[in-house]
Amino acid sequence: MTRSFTIDNDSKVLNPQKFIQKERAQSKLRIDQINTFLENTPQRRDLTHSLIEEICNDPVLKTDTDYYDQTKSQQRLETAKKIARLSLYMEHDIKTIRNQFKGTDLIKELQNDTEHKLPSLCNEDLSIFDKRLSLVANIDPQLGTRVGVHLGLFGNCIKGNGTDEQIHYWLQERGALFIKGIYGCFAMTELGHGSNVAELQTRATYNPKSDTFSIDTPDLTATKWWIGGAAHSATHSTVYARLIVEAKDYGVKTFVVPLRDPATFQLLPGVSIGDIGAKMGRDGIDNGWIQFRNVVIPREFMLSRFTKVLRARDGCISVKTEPQLDSISGYSALLNGRVNMVMDSFRFGAKFVTIATRYAVGRQQFAAKKGQQESQLMDYPLHQYRVLPQISIAYMISPAAFKLMDNYYTTLNELYKVSSSDKSALMRVSQKLKNLFIDSASLKATNTWLVAQLIDELRQSCGGHGYSQYNAFGKGYNDWVVQCTWEGDNSILSLTSAKSILKKFVEAGTRGKFDRELDTESFSYLKPSFLRNVIMGGEEAELNKIEDYYLVWAIALVKLLNHTARLIEKTKKIDGVSKLLILISKFHALHSMLKAYHDKLNSDSESYITDENTRSVMWDIYKLFSLYFIDKHSGEFQQFKIFEPDQISQDVQPQLLQILPKLRNHCIALTDSFKFPDSMLNAPIGYYDGDIYNNYYNEVIKNNPVESDGAGRPVYHELLSSMLKRGFEFDERLGGAAKSEILARLAK
Amino acid sequence: MTRSFTIDNDSKVLNPQKFIQKERAQSKLRIDQINTFLENTPQRRDLTHSLIEEICNDPVLKTDTDYYDQTKSQQRLETAKKIARLSLYMEHDIKTIRNQFKGTDLIKELQNDTEHKLPSLCNEDLSIFDKRLSLVANIDPQLGTRVGVHLGLFGNCIKGNGTDEQIHYWLQERGALFIKGIYGCFAMTELGHGSNVAELQTRATYNPKSDTFSIDTPDLTATKWWIGGAAHSATHSTVYARLIVEAKDYGVKTFVVPLRDPATFQLLPGVSIGDIGAKMGRDGIDNGWIQFRNVVIPREFMLSRFTKVLRARDGCISVKTEPQLDSISGYSALLNGRVNMVMDSFRFGAKFVTIATRYAVGRQQFAAKKGQQESQLMDYPLHQYRVLPQISIAYMISPAAFKLMDNYYTTLNELYKVSSSDKSALMRVSQKLKNLFIDSASLKATNTWLVAQLIDELRQSCGGHGYSQYNAFGKGYNDWVVQCTWEGDNSILSLTSAKSILKKFVEAGTRGKFDRELDTESFSYLKPSFLRNVIMGGEEAELNKIEDYYLVWAIALVKLLNHTARLIEKTKKIDGVSKLLILISKFHALHSMLKAYHDKLNSDSESYITDENTRSVMWDIYKLFSLYFIDKHSGEFQQFKIFEPDQISQDVQPQLLQILPKLRNHCIALTDSFKFPDSMLNAPIGYYDGDIYNNYYNEVIKNNPVESDGAGRPVYHELLSSMLKRGFEFDERLGGAAKSEILARLAK
Repeated sequence: MTRSFTIDNDSKVLNPQKFIQKERAQSKLRIDQINTFLENTPQRRDLTHSLIEEICNDPVLKTDTDYYDQTKSQQRLETAKKIARLSLYMEHDIKTIRNQFKGTDLIKELQNDTEHKLPSLCNEDLSIFDKRLSLVANIDPQLGTRVGVHLGLFGNCIKGNGTDEQIHYWLQERGALFIKGIYGCFAMTELGHGSNVAELQTRATYNPKSDTFSIDTPDLTATKWWIGGAAHSATHSTVYARLIVEAKDYGVKTFVVPLRDPATFQLLPGVSIGDIGAKMGRDGIDNGWIQFRNVVIPREFMLSRFTKVLRARDGCISVKTEPQLDSISGYSALLNGRVNMVMDSFRFGAKFVTIATRYAVGRQQFAAKKGQQESQLMDYPLHQYRVLPQISIAYMISPAAFKLMDNYYTTLNELYKVSSSDKSALMRVSQKLKNLFIDSASLKATNTWLVAQLIDELRQSCGGHGYSQYNAFGKGYNDWVVQCTWEGDNSILSLTSAKSILKKFVEAGTRGKFDRELDTESFSYLKPSFLRNVIMGGEEAELNKIEDYYLVWAIALVKLLNHTARLIEKTKKIDGVSKLLILISKFHALHSMLKAYHDKLNSDSESYITDENTRSVMWDIYKLFSLYFIDKHSGEFQQFKIFEPDQISQDVQPQLLQILPKLRNHCIALTDSFKFPDSMLNAPIGYYDGDIYNNYYNEVIKNNPVESDGAGRPVYHELLSSMLKRGFEFDERLGGAAKSEILARLAK
Repeated sequence: MTRSFTIDNDSKVLNPQKFIQKERAQSKLRIDQINTFLENTPQRRDLTHSLIEEICNDPVLKTDTDYYDQTKSQQRLETAKKIARLSLYMEHDIKTIRNQFKGTDLIKELQNDTEHKLPSLCNEDLSIFDKRLSLVANIDPQLGTRVGVHLGLFGNCIKGNGTDEQIHYWLQERGALFIKGIYGCFAMTELGHGSNVAELQTRATYNPKSDTFSIDTPDLTATKWWIGGAAHSATHSTVYARLIVEAKDYGVKTFVVPLRDPATFQLLPGVSIGDIGAKMGRDGIDNGWIQFRNVVIPREFMLSRFTKVLRARDGCISVKTEPQLDSISGYSALLNGRVNMVMDSFRFGAKFVTIATRYAVGRQQFAAKKGQQESQLMDYPLHQYRVLPQISIAYMISPAAFKLMDNYYTTLNELYKVSSSDKSALMRVSQKLKNLFIDSASLKATNTWLVAQLIDELRQSCGGHGYSQYNAFGKGYNDWVVQCTWEGDNSILSLTSAKSILKKFVEAGTRGKFDRELDTESFSYLKPSFLRNVIMGGEEAELNKIEDYYLVWAIALVKLLNHTARLIEKTKKIDGVSKLLILISKFHALHSMLKAYHDKLNSDSESYITDENTRSVMWDIYKLFSLYFIDKHSGEFQQFKIFEPDQISQDVQPQLLQILPKLRNHCIALTDSFKFPDSMLNAPIGYYDGDIYNNYYNEVIKNNPVESDGAGRPVYHELLSSMLKRGFEFDERLGGAAKSEILARLAK
């Protein structure tokens, strides 16, 4: 049935597209300017758009609604096809960066460059592909992970722990970074140990006679578990195992261990691998388990940047280790993933608010008065409260995510360059890494949680249609929530980052310690003069000037930190305040996000917003974010005397209620500004034209063809009809269990 | 690899079962007594246990971990098999109730009883089967729904809207209530209308010449949508359609419309049906869409209890309607589902807290000091804060759920008995129904939300293993969350119930209106003397005596209602306070739950807890629930001046922190008390013996046999190996695009 079949032209045919088109036409917002703001710079924006176009046009990479009907094995296969496709883009992207398409084959040169004559492959070389991968992961998260494990985890483990020669060999000469030659996985987690890496039990025992290591799984709980890529695609693995030399345990180190012959995909001797099977989401990833039984690798396969097993000419064995650097590298291994997850939070948040906003504008339900046209969902204040703050969340993540990403690359480059003999430079970069760890941990935890709630809340706001797989929320949520658990469980990350913040707070408060160069950006609220002022009651929280909306969080942080520190002082137990520590990490993230957004929008050179009206709406978004979370945390704001109860009733909540209807008028433009094409949303109730019902209906029809046994007739129809037509003869067949005459005869 | 393969007996083999066994052995709690409390009465408890045993032993009904690997079509088929199996239990259960297995075949008698000589089938006849269905739905929610749509929605629609004769014919003689003869679906929702039932657009136009109705779908948005059972299994439907007689629209009424021939499952003429396809969860339900094109049914198929189309001998047509009764029946149609969802909330909550608690006790991670044994997760205060309040939620739902269920059956029986001429009795029952609506709406919304959060929070608390499908959380969550949307969207239900509460508040406050008989149970906080006291400041919130822990919520409700009423007075807009209305509904539910639990535990005859120590722990659970939600809502508690900021810091939070470690010691016993057998949990990390790692590993191995192409070798291995071994010849194959010599030749 299509629109033309309507049998009565007087009937109420809902026409959602007209609302969306009307609101779009009425908006005066400069969505191009907003898009540049959200994509950080004009250069980055242009790259984003051109990559999105390529992905959505690519016959293998593009993703349609049939995606939501794939079984686990189909997902595995389709993902593998897409990886093979991406491997070609990878070569192309590196050639683009180095501007070398003619003359010689760059990839061949790089792979053959055993003597390091060319500049080695570096992060810059991968920058286009990284962005491509991040965008493709927005459409197909399991694809993103499956490649990300190889490049990000396997690759970064080698980069962080390998010597220069090892990095060059595995990643460049063997082709790993071109997705060639070998495919890697990252065997850290075990069945019995996830977060506590230091207690992993897999062993790498050095054999002096053969100058090799034996890799062994000592018992079931030491089975490598959840290893992405292990079940089917990895030929090699970086394995976290205890280094044991001459019966001494040197703790957990990393080793490159071949798993399969890349030509035949046969498992190598001693390697047992199985499939972890069905997961809540991301079934396209072949997570597996691995057990090792006397798997022998050369000594040289141990990643030896900071710890080396040395063999003297006389056969004497020694272990040389640099514990401080080793621990620094510990910081860096999982950082990349966390930084990327903050960027993912921006794009996933943006995607789902776009879908839900368009639906809320197009969908009508209930009339204000009998006989009137039914109201658009978005006109209900409750609906505005449910949806609009979620738009502000997506907006507020962007500047912080780009800033964190830039900070990550700068700091890591510095780390790779620093010489291990230059202790003071090393201390400096180690301090930077610690700050980066705090920021990335608190932003990762806070935003992956926020976006999980965002997807859930917005799915509910789309009612029943939100529960259909074809509208993206279901798989979207299932794929998303693992981000709260992997590469640092959110609770543990929050605790760890909060403990570091607390330590800084105590040092700043008691000893006036504050590093002007390193701490000003993220820890401005720890400036000793500010601290003192807040604690002495000299800083009153207000919500008048623009900067107040982030400063109020600085005040809140100090008061929360102060309350927490005093509690610990009293109870002597830091674990007892862990609920408060989680809050500290969250408040730190909210403050950073507001500040980064504020500073960018306030900057002449970096905001790219020249239109005054647009800028003013962008400030409303910022205020909404701050007010929404003050209201959500009004318990803490009152308890720690940041605001009086009456200020909540008479200032915070009224401001919040005033700002929502203002932003409501711009909601279509604000979500259009993300510039997601329909093929990236892959959710018919959220397509650009707003023709919600026809779009959704058409996708349902396309994906659910007539049953093979006839329309509406399931293949198991005989089962049903024989159930329904079972008659009274059931009792007869049992011998007439109920029949008195028979029972009487039987009783004779 | 099994335990016996451990290669080194000195290695740290984690041994979770010893912790669980130890804590179980140490507990002095009387779990039998607690179980009786939770299952309401000894009689109900015994029935529950015997039904659970039957279900878990039944070769068709039992559910194993392979359940989590089924594709959509497998789920559809398996569910149909289970329905056929349940249909036999149904007959058996009715015979059990009527105690008639011999002499004559009861089912045959009931179906042939066209002259109403026997007592008609009633709710009591179905009481065993209802419980059976509710329990089976805990193991396999989609099965529960698929049968529930037929019995609960199709059946109750006929019961609520049909004449006695229509009820007797469709449900008893045709066999529907025995799952025989016909299978029904419930065609209410349309693509364009869900919550706003009055605006449904499907039409039933009366044809005077043939004395029939034509059922028609006027346009795409009027397509019946989301109809459970429509895609594949329903032979008949109750259809919500506008009654149109002589061009006059009488609004939405209900009709029985045949869809398929029950013998062949062919669709009938004019009926178009399709599959809605993939959903976020519950794919075993065959939700479908239906379009009608001139589908003709006899006039007598209109359900005519309150509205009749009458045809006089002279052919004159009239419509007789009883609008008041019609609207009462409107209340009752979806009530059953809501009442059941509160009971589901108890059982689902209980299931997931059992799994997460056992995992938290068995799992170790990180040692307090180097060299010490790693701590059990449950020993971390943060973990206690994440898990223990969730146990209290499951506990607190139970008494309220049973009370609501009993109240529902009493009131409905009264409604069905009352004569439509007895206006005063009718007013009375209508008042009871309204109260029941408020309670069921606020309890349904609050508890389905709470349990959605509970599942999510507890999945996260199980880390990575919580993300595995085999540990129940993934599908459990996906199956669960639709409860927040269907049969009354939670937001809309909350708003509607809160508006009614607000109306009662205003009437009690301004006119002293309070119905001692009807309102005392659920609306005790609206007693005018209490209201006055609270508003005048004569009632101070305290947390000392046992009853304070629910009374504090009564005070909170009055203050919240008062604040809301004043805001509306000021702004004249009720929509503006909808965020507060949602809170009113939630506070009402929390108060009812605490009060029901308090009254039961406090009762000599109804608590069944005779052991003092056990009772005292049960009171701690109750306090924990109250404290946890006061702390969660500390914003409102301070804003509405129920507590001062310092009371939160010095009383509420310290009490909360003190109670958690106390309850921690009993957590295994408290969850054992739910008495869920392993086969009902269907989650190996939560099995009774606590052998977490072996159990989980074994299920993974069982469900993921070696790949058909060889161990660890995917069927698509050639795709991967050809990707990896692509060499430099790629460029050659393109004609040597990079080769200067060739390009030079081409340039000549």
